[in-house]
Amino acid sequence: MMTVTDRNDQALGAPAVVLLSGGLDSATCLALAAAQGFACQALSFDYGQRHTFELDAARRLATTYGAAHRTVRLDLGGLGGSALTDEAIDVPKNRRDEESEIPLTYVPARNLTFLSLALGVAEVVGARDLFIGVNALDYSGYPDCRPAFLRAFEQVAAQATKAAVEGRGAEEFSVHAPLLRLSKGQIVRLGHRLGVDFASTHSCYDPSPAGEACGHCDACRLRAKGFAEAGLVDPLAPSTS
Amino acid sequence: MMTVTDRNDQALGAPAVVLLSGGLDSATCLALAAAQGFACQALSFDYGQRHTFELDAARRLATTYGAAHRTVRLDLGGLGGSALTDEAIDVPKNRRDEESEIPLTYVPARNLTFLSLALGVAEVVGARDLFIGVNALDYSGYPDCRPAFLRAFEQVAAQATKAAVEGRGAEEFSVHAPLLRLSKGQIVRLGHRLGVDFASTHSCYDPSPAGEACGHCDACRLRAKGFAEAGLVDPLAPSTS
Repeated sequence: MMTVTDRNDQALGAPAVVLLSGGLDSATCLALAAAQGFACQALSFDYGQRHTFELDAARRLATTYGAAHRTVRLDLGGLGGSALTDEAIDVPKNRRDEESEIPLTYVPARNLTFLSLALGVAEVVGARDLFIGVNALDYSGYPDCRPAFLRAFEQVAAQATKAAVEGRGAEEFSVHAPLLRLSKGQIVRLGHRLGVDFASTHSCYDPSPAGEACGHCDACRLRAKGFAEAGLVDPLAPSTS
Repeated sequence: MMTVTDRNDQALGAPAVVLLSGGLDSATCLALAAAQGFACQALSFDYGQRHTFELDAARRLATTYGAAHRTVRLDLGGLGGSALTDEAIDVPKNRRDEESEIPLTYVPARNLTFLSLALGVAEVVGARDLFIGVNALDYSGYPDCRPAFLRAFEQVAAQATKAAVEGRGAEEFSVHAPLLRLSKGQIVRLGHRLGVDFASTHSCYDPSPAGEACGHCDACRLRAKGFAEAGLVDPLAPSTS
Protein backbone atom coordinates (compact mmCIF):
# COMPACT_ATOMS: atom_id res chain seq x y z
CA MET A 1 0.00 0.00 0.00
CA MET A 2 2.75 2.40 0.90
CA THR A 3 5.23 1.48 -1.78
CA VAL A 4 5.13 1.11 -5.51
CA THR A 5 6.69 -2.29 -5.22
CA ASP A 6 6.37 -4.15 -1.95
CA ARG A 7 9.07 -6.51 -0.84
CA ASN A 8 9.15 -8.59 2.29
CA ASP A 9 12.87 -8.89 2.84
CA GLN A 10 13.55 -5.48 4.35
CA ALA A 11 16.25 -5.94 6.95
CA LEU A 12 16.31 -3.83 10.05
CA GLY A 13 19.05 -1.27 9.59
CA ALA A 14 19.26 -1.85 5.84
CA PRO A 15 20.46 1.23 3.96
CA ALA A 16 17.91 3.29 2.06
CA VAL A 17 18.44 6.39 -0.07
CA VAL A 18 15.95 9.15 0.75
CA LEU A 19 15.48 12.15 -1.54
CA LEU A 20 15.37 15.12 0.80
CA SER A 21 14.50 18.57 -0.51
CA GLY A 22 14.00 20.00 2.96
CA GLY A 23 10.28 20.52 2.45
CA LEU A 24 7.40 19.19 4.50
CA ASP A 25 6.81 16.16 2.30
CA SER A 26 10.39 14.91 2.07
CA ALA A 27 10.85 15.53 5.82
CA THR A 28 7.84 13.31 6.51
CA CYS A 29 9.16 10.73 4.06
CA LEU A 30 12.54 10.68 5.84
CA ALA A 31 10.87 10.37 9.24
CA LEU A 32 8.83 7.43 7.97
CA ALA A 33 11.83 5.63 6.46
CA ALA A 34 13.73 6.10 9.72
CA ALA A 35 10.73 4.87 11.75
CA GLN A 36 10.61 1.76 9.53
CA GLY A 37 14.15 0.96 10.62
CA PHE A 38 16.09 1.93 7.53
CA ALA A 39 19.57 3.42 7.89
CA CYS A 40 18.87 6.51 5.83
CA GLN A 41 21.22 8.07 3.32
CA ALA A 42 19.69 11.46 2.52
CA LEU A 43 20.34 13.01 -0.87
CA SER A 44 19.73 16.67 -1.70
CA PHE A 45 20.36 18.69 -4.82
CA ASP A 46 21.77 22.14 -5.25
CA TYR A 47 20.17 22.61 -8.66
CA GLY A 48 20.15 26.35 -9.13
CA GLN A 49 17.17 27.01 -6.86
CA ARG A 50 16.58 30.70 -6.38
CA HIS A 51 17.37 30.30 -2.70
CA THR A 52 19.20 27.82 -0.48
CA PHE A 53 16.90 27.85 2.55
CA GLU A 54 15.59 24.43 1.65
CA LEU A 55 19.11 23.00 1.54
CA ASP A 56 19.70 24.40 5.03
CA ALA A 57 16.47 22.70 6.09
CA ALA A 58 17.62 19.43 4.51
CA ARG A 59 20.86 19.54 6.50
CA ARG A 60 18.97 20.11 9.76
CA LEU A 61 16.55 17.28 9.05
CA ALA A 62 19.28 14.82 8.08
CA THR A 63 21.07 15.54 11.34
CA THR A 64 17.85 15.03 13.31
CA TYR A 65 17.35 11.58 11.83
CA GLY A 66 20.99 10.51 12.03
CA ALA A 67 21.11 10.22 8.25
CA ALA A 68 24.24 10.48 6.16
CA HIS A 69 23.70 13.47 3.89
CA ARG A 70 24.98 14.16 0.38
CA THR A 71 24.28 17.34 -1.54
CA VAL A 72 24.97 16.99 -5.25
CA ARG A 73 25.47 20.14 -7.32
CA LEU A 74 23.46 19.95 -10.49
CA ASP A 75 23.05 22.98 -12.70
CA LEU A 76 19.46 22.45 -13.84
CA GLY A 77 19.25 26.19 -14.49
CA GLY A 78 21.28 25.49 -17.62
CA LEU A 79 18.32 23.58 -19.03
CA GLY A 80 15.92 26.52 -18.78
CA GLY A 81 12.15 26.24 -18.92
CA SER A 82 11.13 26.49 -15.24
CA ALA A 83 10.20 29.30 -12.90
CA LEU A 84 12.12 27.51 -10.13
CA THR A 85 15.47 27.66 -11.88
CA ASP A 86 15.12 30.29 -14.61
CA GLU A 87 15.47 33.88 -13.42
CA ALA A 88 13.59 35.06 -16.50
CA ILE A 89 10.35 33.36 -15.37
CA ASP A 90 8.44 34.73 -12.36
CA VAL A 91 7.23 32.39 -9.63
CA PRO A 92 3.42 32.33 -10.02
CA LYS A 93 1.45 33.78 -7.09
CA ASN A 94 -2.15 33.25 -6.01
CA ARG A 95 -3.00 30.92 -8.85
CA ARG A 96 -6.65 29.95 -9.08
CA ASP A 97 -7.19 26.44 -7.71
CA GLU A 98 -9.03 25.34 -10.81
CA GLU A 99 -6.02 25.99 -13.02
CA SER A 100 -4.96 22.47 -13.78
CA GLU A 101 -2.38 22.94 -16.48
CA ILE A 102 1.23 21.98 -15.77
CA PRO A 103 2.61 24.72 -13.52
CA LEU A 104 5.49 26.99 -14.48
CA THR A 105 7.29 25.62 -11.43
CA TYR A 106 7.56 22.21 -13.11
CA VAL A 107 11.24 21.46 -13.81
CA PRO A 108 11.61 19.21 -16.88
CA ALA A 109 12.58 15.64 -16.02
CA ARG A 110 13.50 16.66 -12.48
CA ASN A 111 12.29 13.63 -10.56
CA LEU A 112 13.71 11.31 -13.20
CA THR A 113 17.11 12.95 -12.81
CA PHE A 114 16.88 12.95 -9.01
CA LEU A 115 15.87 9.28 -8.88
CA SER A 116 18.67 8.42 -11.32
CA LEU A 117 21.22 10.00 -9.02
CA ALA A 118 19.60 8.34 -6.00
CA LEU A 119 20.03 5.05 -7.82
CA GLY A 120 23.71 5.87 -8.31
CA VAL A 121 24.07 6.45 -4.56
CA ALA A 122 22.14 3.25 -3.86
CA GLU A 123 24.57 1.32 -6.02
CA VAL A 124 27.57 2.84 -4.21
CA VAL A 125 26.24 2.25 -0.68
CA GLY A 126 24.57 -1.09 -1.40
CA ALA A 127 20.99 0.11 -0.84
CA ARG A 128 18.00 -1.51 -2.53
CA ASP A 129 15.37 0.96 -1.35
CA LEU A 130 14.75 4.48 -2.61
CA PHE A 131 12.31 6.87 -0.90
CA ILE A 132 10.75 9.84 -2.64
CA GLY A 133 8.09 12.11 -1.18
CA VAL A 134 6.09 12.65 -4.36
CA ASN A 135 2.36 13.11 -4.23
CA ALA A 136 -0.07 12.34 -7.03
CA LEU A 137 -3.01 14.32 -5.67
CA ASP A 138 -1.79 17.83 -5.09
CA TYR A 139 0.81 17.61 -7.85
CA SER A 140 -1.44 16.04 -10.44
CA GLY A 141 -0.08 18.41 -13.06
CA TYR A 142 3.47 17.07 -12.64
CA PRO A 143 4.03 14.07 -14.92
CA ASP A 144 6.84 12.72 -12.78
CA CYS A 145 4.66 12.49 -9.65
CA ARG A 146 2.41 9.78 -11.11
CA PRO A 147 2.39 6.06 -10.18
CA ALA A 148 2.94 5.06 -13.82
CA PHE A 149 6.16 7.08 -13.85
CA LEU A 150 7.44 5.48 -10.64
CA ARG A 151 6.71 1.97 -11.93
CA ALA A 152 8.55 2.77 -15.16
CA PHE A 153 11.48 4.04 -13.11
CA GLU A 154 11.67 0.74 -11.22
CA GLN A 155 11.84 -1.00 -14.58
CA VAL A 156 14.69 1.14 -15.86
CA ALA A 157 16.50 0.85 -12.52
CA ALA A 158 16.39 -2.92 -12.92
CA GLN A 159 18.30 -2.51 -16.20
CA ALA A 160 20.63 0.36 -15.33
CA THR A 161 22.93 -1.05 -12.70
CA LYS A 162 25.56 -3.69 -12.06
CA ALA A 163 22.88 -5.94 -10.61
CA ALA A 164 21.30 -6.23 -14.07
CA VAL A 165 24.55 -7.46 -15.64
CA GLU A 166 25.12 -9.84 -12.76
CA GLY A 167 21.64 -11.38 -13.15
CA ARG A 168 20.14 -9.82 -10.02
CA GLY A 169 18.37 -6.94 -11.75
CA ALA A 170 14.71 -7.75 -11.87
CA GLU A 171 13.78 -7.36 -8.21
CA GLU A 172 16.74 -5.36 -7.03
CA PHE A 173 15.37 -1.86 -6.45
CA SER A 174 12.16 -0.63 -4.86
CA VAL A 175 10.89 2.92 -5.15
CA HIS A 176 8.93 3.83 -2.03
CA ALA A 177 6.53 6.74 -2.44
CA PRO A 178 4.63 6.58 0.85
CA LEU A 179 2.90 9.95 0.35
CA LEU A 180 1.73 9.18 -3.16
CA ARG A 181 -1.97 8.94 -2.45
CA LEU A 182 -2.26 11.10 0.69
CA SER A 183 -3.92 14.50 0.83
CA LYS A 184 -1.79 17.37 2.11
CA GLY A 185 -3.77 17.24 5.35
CA GLN A 186 -2.98 13.54 5.72
CA ILE A 187 0.70 14.23 5.10
CA VAL A 188 0.74 16.90 7.83
CA ARG A 189 -1.03 14.51 10.24
CA LEU A 190 1.42 11.72 9.39
CA GLY A 191 4.39 14.03 9.94
CA HIS A 192 2.88 15.20 13.21
CA ARG A 193 2.41 11.60 14.45
CA LEU A 194 6.03 10.84 13.51
CA GLY A 195 7.23 13.88 15.44
CA VAL A 196 8.56 15.86 12.47
CA ASP A 197 9.82 19.26 13.57
CA PHE A 198 7.90 21.33 11.02
CA ALA A 199 9.86 24.44 12.04
CA SER A 200 12.94 22.75 10.54
CA THR A 201 11.37 22.42 7.10
CA HIS A 202 11.13 24.90 4.24
CA SER A 203 8.43 24.97 1.55
CA CYS A 204 8.17 28.47 0.01
CA TYR A 205 9.26 28.90 -3.62
CA ASP A 206 9.92 32.61 -3.18
CA PRO A 207 10.99 33.45 0.39
CA SER A 208 12.11 36.82 1.71
CA PRO A 209 15.88 37.45 1.98
CA ALA A 210 15.55 36.37 5.63
CA GLY A 211 13.93 33.09 4.62
CA GLU A 212 10.33 33.89 5.57
CA ALA A 213 7.60 32.24 3.53
CA CYS A 214 5.78 34.48 1.02
CA GLY A 215 2.39 32.91 1.73
CA HIS A 216 1.20 33.24 -1.87
CA CYS A 217 3.12 30.81 -4.07
CA ASP A 218 1.73 27.36 -4.84
CA ALA A 219 3.95 25.74 -2.19
CA CYS A 220 2.86 28.13 0.57
CA ARG A 221 -0.82 27.83 -0.30
CA LEU A 222 -0.68 24.04 -0.41
CA ARG A 223 1.16 23.93 2.91
CA ALA A 224 -1.42 26.22 4.53
CA LYS A 225 -4.21 24.02 3.16
CA GLY A 226 -2.53 20.95 4.66
CA PHE A 227 -2.21 22.42 8.14
CA ALA A 228 -5.78 23.70 7.98
CA GLU A 229 -7.09 20.26 6.97
CA ALA A 230 -5.05 18.64 9.73
CA GLY A 231 -6.29 21.13 12.29
CA LEU A 232 -2.73 22.02 13.25
CA VAL A 233 -0.80 25.27 13.44
CA ASP A 234 2.18 25.70 11.13
CA PRO A 235 5.09 27.11 13.14
CA LEU A 236 6.29 28.76 9.93
CA ALA A 237 2.99 30.35 8.92
CA PRO A 238 3.62 33.86 7.57
CA SER A 239 2.46 36.62 9.92
CA THR A 240 0.71 38.31 6.98
CA SER A 241 -1.27 36.52 4.31
CA MET B 1 18.49 -1.05 -37.35
CA MET B 2 20.26 2.05 -36.18
CA THR B 3 17.87 3.09 -33.45
CA VAL B 4 16.25 1.43 -30.51
CA THR B 5 12.86 2.63 -31.63
CA ASP B 6 12.41 3.53 -35.28
CA ARG B 7 9.96 6.21 -36.25
CA ASN B 8 9.14 7.35 -39.74
CA ASP B 9 8.09 10.91 -39.06
CA GLN B 10 11.50 12.52 -38.63
CA ALA B 11 11.27 15.99 -40.11
CA LEU B 12 14.25 17.55 -41.84
CA GLY B 13 15.69 20.09 -39.44
CA ALA B 14 13.85 18.64 -36.44
CA PRO B 15 15.68 19.25 -33.17
CA ALA B 16 17.56 16.36 -31.58
CA VAL B 17 19.49 16.25 -28.32
CA VAL B 18 22.90 14.60 -28.72
CA LEU B 19 24.94 13.53 -25.71
CA LEU B 20 28.47 14.68 -26.49
CA SER B 21 31.35 13.68 -24.25
CA GLY B 22 33.96 14.81 -26.74
CA GLY B 23 35.19 11.27 -27.35
CA LEU B 24 35.45 9.41 -30.62
CA ASP B 25 32.10 7.67 -30.25
CA SER B 26 29.97 10.68 -29.34
CA ALA B 27 31.69 12.72 -32.08
CA THR B 28 30.70 10.08 -34.62
CA CYS B 29 27.19 10.01 -33.17
CA LEU B 30 26.88 13.80 -33.54
CA ALA B 31 28.21 13.66 -37.10
CA LEU B 32 25.63 11.00 -37.96
CA ALA B 33 22.72 12.92 -36.40
CA ALA B 34 23.78 16.05 -38.32
CA ALA B 35 24.12 14.04 -41.54
CA GLN B 36 20.59 12.71 -41.01
CA GLY B 37 19.32 16.30 -41.07
CA PHE B 38 18.66 16.85 -37.39
CA ALA B 39 19.25 20.29 -35.89
CA CYS B 40 21.51 19.10 -33.10
CA GLN B 41 21.46 20.34 -29.52
CA ALA B 42 24.63 18.95 -27.96
CA LEU B 43 24.71 18.27 -24.25
CA SER B 44 27.90 17.73 -22.23
CA PHE B 45 28.48 17.21 -18.53
CA ASP B 46 31.09 18.62 -16.26
CA TYR B 47 30.77 15.82 -13.75
CA GLY B 48 34.00 15.96 -11.82
CA GLN B 49 36.11 14.25 -14.45
CA ARG B 50 39.76 14.31 -13.52
CA HIS B 51 40.47 16.52 -16.52
CA THR B 52 38.51 18.85 -18.80
CA PHE B 53 40.17 18.02 -22.11
CA GLU B 54 37.10 16.13 -23.23
CA LEU B 55 34.87 19.14 -22.53
CA ASP B 56 37.19 21.25 -24.68
CA ALA B 57 36.84 18.60 -27.38
CA ALA B 58 33.04 18.68 -27.03
CA ARG B 59 33.00 22.43 -27.57
CA ARG B 60 35.13 22.15 -30.72
CA LEU B 61 32.94 19.39 -32.11
CA ALA B 62 29.67 21.22 -31.39
CA THR B 63 31.00 24.27 -33.23
CA THR B 64 32.04 22.12 -36.20
CA TYR B 65 28.53 20.72 -36.56
CA GLY B 66 26.70 23.99 -35.91
CA ALA B 67 25.11 22.49 -32.82
CA ALA B 68 23.84 24.48 -29.88
CA HIS B 69 25.91 23.34 -26.89
CA ARG B 70 25.00 23.10 -23.22
CA THR B 71 27.40 21.98 -20.52
CA VAL B 72 25.62 21.01 -17.31
CA ARG B 73 27.62 20.92 -14.09
CA LEU B 74 26.88 17.76 -12.17
CA ASP B 75 28.96 16.76 -9.18
CA LEU B 76 29.02 12.99 -9.69
CA GLY B 77 32.23 12.89 -7.66
CA GLY B 78 30.02 13.35 -4.61
CA LEU B 79 28.54 9.90 -5.23
CA GLY B 80 31.90 8.14 -5.05
CA GLY B 81 32.57 4.65 -6.33
CA SER B 82 34.30 5.27 -9.67
CA ALA B 83 37.90 5.68 -10.81
CA LEU B 84 36.74 8.40 -13.22
CA THR B 85 35.41 10.71 -10.55
CA ASP B 86 36.95 9.52 -7.28
CA GLU B 87 40.51 10.67 -6.67
CA ALA B 88 41.00 7.82 -4.22
CA ILE B 89 40.67 5.20 -6.96
CA ASP B 90 43.43 4.86 -9.58
CA VAL B 91 42.54 4.68 -13.27
CA PRO B 92 43.33 1.06 -14.27
CA LYS B 93 46.15 0.64 -16.82
CA ASN B 94 46.95 -2.23 -19.16
CA ARG B 95 44.07 -4.40 -18.03
CA ARG B 96 44.04 -7.89 -19.51
CA ASP B 97 41.48 -8.14 -22.31
CA GLU B 98 39.92 -11.22 -20.79
CA GLU B 99 38.97 -9.36 -17.63
CA SER B 100 35.26 -9.11 -18.07
CA GLU B 101 34.11 -7.81 -14.72
CA ILE B 102 32.57 -4.34 -14.50
CA PRO B 103 35.47 -1.90 -14.79
CA LEU B 104 36.46 0.54 -12.05
CA THR B 105 35.82 3.30 -14.59
CA TYR B 106 32.09 2.52 -14.48
CA VAL B 107 30.23 5.47 -12.95
CA PRO B 108 27.03 4.32 -11.15
CA ALA B 109 23.87 5.20 -13.04
CA ARG B 110 25.77 7.61 -15.29
CA ASN B 111 24.01 7.02 -18.59
CA LEU B 112 20.63 6.97 -16.84
CA THR B 113 21.40 10.37 -15.33
CA PHE B 114 22.76 11.74 -18.60
CA LEU B 115 19.74 10.54 -20.58
CA SER B 116 17.42 11.97 -17.92
CA LEU B 117 18.97 15.39 -18.33
CA ALA B 118 18.93 15.01 -22.12
CA LEU B 119 15.22 14.32 -21.81
CA GLY B 120 14.84 17.53 -19.80
CA VAL B 121 16.57 19.47 -22.58
CA ALA B 122 14.41 17.71 -25.16
CA GLU B 123 11.30 18.81 -23.32
CA VAL B 124 12.54 22.42 -23.17
CA VAL B 125 13.55 22.65 -26.84
CA GLY B 126 10.71 20.52 -28.20
CA ALA B 127 12.90 17.64 -29.40
CA ARG B 128 11.63 14.06 -29.67
CA ASP B 129 14.93 12.42 -30.55
CA LEU B 130 17.85 11.67 -28.24
CA PHE B 131 21.20 10.42 -29.54
CA ILE B 132 23.69 8.56 -27.36
CA GLY B 133 26.93 6.98 -28.56
CA VAL B 134 26.84 3.90 -26.34
CA ASN B 135 28.25 0.61 -27.55
CA ALA B 136 27.20 -2.80 -26.35
CA LEU B 137 30.20 -4.72 -27.68
CA ASP B 138 33.28 -3.03 -26.30
CA TYR B 139 31.47 -1.87 -23.16
CA SER B 140 29.74 -5.12 -22.41
CA GLY B 141 30.61 -4.73 -18.73
CA TYR B 142 28.64 -1.49 -18.42
CA PRO B 143 24.99 -2.22 -17.57
CA ASP B 144 23.81 1.09 -18.98
CA CYS B 145 25.25 0.39 -22.44
CA ARG B 146 22.87 -2.52 -23.12
CA PRO B 147 19.84 -2.50 -25.45
CA ALA B 148 17.52 -3.61 -22.61
CA PHE B 149 18.52 -0.53 -20.64
CA LEU B 150 17.86 1.80 -23.57
CA ARG B 151 14.43 0.27 -24.21
CA ALA B 152 13.57 0.67 -20.51
CA PHE B 153 14.66 4.29 -20.71
CA GLU B 154 12.29 4.93 -23.61
CA GLN B 155 9.51 3.51 -21.45
CA VAL B 156 10.27 5.77 -18.49
CA ALA B 157 10.70 8.77 -20.82
CA ALA B 158 7.19 8.13 -22.08
CA GLN B 159 5.95 8.53 -18.50
CA ALA B 160 8.26 11.28 -17.23
CA THR B 161 7.30 14.33 -19.25
CA LYS B 162 4.44 16.71 -19.98
CA ALA B 163 3.61 14.67 -23.05
CA ALA B 164 2.54 11.78 -20.80
CA VAL B 165 0.07 13.94 -18.88
CA GLU B 166 -1.24 15.43 -22.10
CA GLY B 167 -1.86 12.00 -23.59
CA ARG B 168 0.97 12.08 -26.10
CA GLY B 169 3.45 10.05 -24.08
CA ALA B 170 3.59 6.61 -25.55
CA GLU B 171 5.46 7.31 -28.78
CA GLU B 172 6.91 10.67 -27.92
CA PHE B 173 10.62 10.02 -27.43
CA SER B 174 13.10 7.88 -29.35
CA VAL B 175 16.54 6.98 -28.08
CA HIS B 176 18.93 6.58 -30.99
CA ALA B 177 22.02 4.54 -30.27
CA PRO B 178 23.49 4.15 -33.75
CA LEU B 179 26.82 2.73 -32.54
CA LEU B 180 25.21 0.13 -30.30
CA ARG B 181 26.19 -2.96 -32.28
CA LEU B 182 29.28 -1.69 -34.11
CA SER B 183 32.83 -2.80 -33.39
CA LYS B 184 35.33 -0.07 -32.54
CA GLY B 185 36.82 -0.53 -36.00
CA GLN B 186 33.40 -0.04 -37.59
CA ILE B 187 32.88 3.13 -35.51
CA VAL B 188 36.20 4.55 -36.69
CA ARG B 189 35.33 3.73 -40.29
CA LEU B 190 31.89 5.32 -39.92
CA GLY B 191 33.40 8.45 -38.40
CA HIS B 192 35.97 8.56 -41.20
CA ARG B 193 33.27 8.30 -43.87
CA LEU B 194 31.33 11.12 -42.18
CA GLY B 195 34.43 13.31 -42.12
CA VAL B 196 34.86 13.45 -38.33
CA ASP B 197 38.00 15.37 -37.40
CA PHE B 198 39.49 12.78 -35.06
CA ALA B 199 42.15 15.28 -33.94
CA SER B 200 39.31 17.28 -32.33
CA THR B 201 38.23 14.39 -30.11
CA HIS B 202 39.56 13.21 -26.75
CA SER B 203 39.38 9.67 -25.37
CA CYS B 204 42.08 9.13 -22.71
CA TYR B 205 40.93 8.65 -19.09
CA ASP B 206 44.28 9.78 -17.70
CA PRO B 207 45.98 12.33 -19.98
CA SER B 208 49.21 14.22 -19.30
CA PRO B 209 48.89 17.78 -17.99
CA ALA B 210 49.27 18.93 -21.61
CA GLY B 211 46.34 16.70 -22.66
CA GLU B 212 48.32 13.95 -24.38
CA ALA B 213 46.84 10.45 -24.28
CA CYS B 214 48.46 7.98 -21.88
CA GLY B 215 48.15 5.05 -24.28
CA HIS B 216 47.53 2.52 -21.50
CA CYS B 217 44.06 3.08 -20.03
CA ASP B 218 41.03 1.17 -21.31
CA ALA B 219 39.92 4.13 -23.45
CA CYS B 220 43.32 4.53 -25.14
CA ARG B 221 43.68 0.82 -25.81
CA LEU B 222 40.19 0.54 -27.25
CA ARG B 223 40.77 3.56 -29.47
CA ALA B 224 44.06 2.12 -30.75
CA LYS B 225 42.31 -1.18 -31.48
CA GLY B 226 39.62 0.68 -33.43
CA PHE B 227 42.06 2.56 -35.64
CA ALA B 228 44.08 -0.62 -36.21
CA GLU B 229 40.95 -2.55 -37.23
CA ALA B 230 39.90 0.27 -39.54
CA GLY B 231 43.36 0.47 -41.10
CA LEU B 232 43.59 4.17 -40.32
CA VAL B 233 46.11 6.30 -38.45
CA ASP B 234 44.94 8.07 -35.28
CA PRO B 235 46.14 11.68 -35.40
CA LEU B 236 46.21 11.59 -31.58
CA ALA B 237 48.17 8.33 -31.21
CA PRO B 238 50.71 8.70 -28.39
CA SER B 239 54.30 8.90 -29.58
CA THR B 240 55.27 6.26 -26.99
CA SER B 241 53.26 3.17 -26.19
